[in-house]
Amino acid sequence: MVVVTAVHVVVMPEHVEAFVAATLDNHRNSVQEPGNLRFDVLRSASQPDRFLLHEVYETQEAADAHKRTAHYLRWREAVAGMMAEPRVGVPYTVLAPLDPADW
Amino acid sequence: MVVVTAVHVVVMPEHVEAFVAATLDNHRNSVQEPGNLRFDVLRSASQPDRFLLHEVYETQEAADAHKRTAHYLRWREAVAGMMAEPRVGVPYTVLAPLDPADW
Repeated sequence: MVVVTAVHVVVMPEHVEAFVAATLDNHRNSVQEPGNLRFDVLRSASQPDRFLLHEVYETQEAADAHKRTAHYLRWREAVAGMMAEPRVGVPYTVLAPLDPADW
Repeated sequence: MVVVTAVHVVVMPEHVEAFVAATLDNHRNSVQEPGNLRFDVLRSASQPDRFLLHEVYETQEAADAHKRTAHYLRWREAVAGMMAEPRVGVPYTVLAPLDPADW
């Protein structure tokens, strides 16, 4: 079952550039993971210190495995001191599209 | 430039089934629009009356054109009385992936 996690991050203004660099590194590696369907890095159009990581995995196991990768752990460590408030990951189930090939 | 809108909807419990049906109709038609890249219908894993429509268009013009389609207007009319609070659409710009072909 495809699982989606929307991770909301608020970054301190002075760390935005470094946060973007670390997150693009995470993106480049995450999309190579088996079971990864999407790892979109989005920035609020109205509040440029707010970001959304839209992470989609084929299975819960693949989503869990992401948390054990070197690139995730590197990202987590790198951005820990950059956030203005704790990040919030919101899990979703998928109503459409249901075919993993459509992601 | 690819534009993303995350539409957050809270539905009255008694209307959830009808909301899902109307939104899947909107999904099926929206993914056929020229310029539509994604129209994902997601449901909160922990709060089943909360939904997220993750809408991605190739350009702002294509996103605007969506609001003038018969299926959007039908959906808007159908769900107007089903929501527990006004829906919130949050616009995002894309940092990755930058190639529309990767959506």
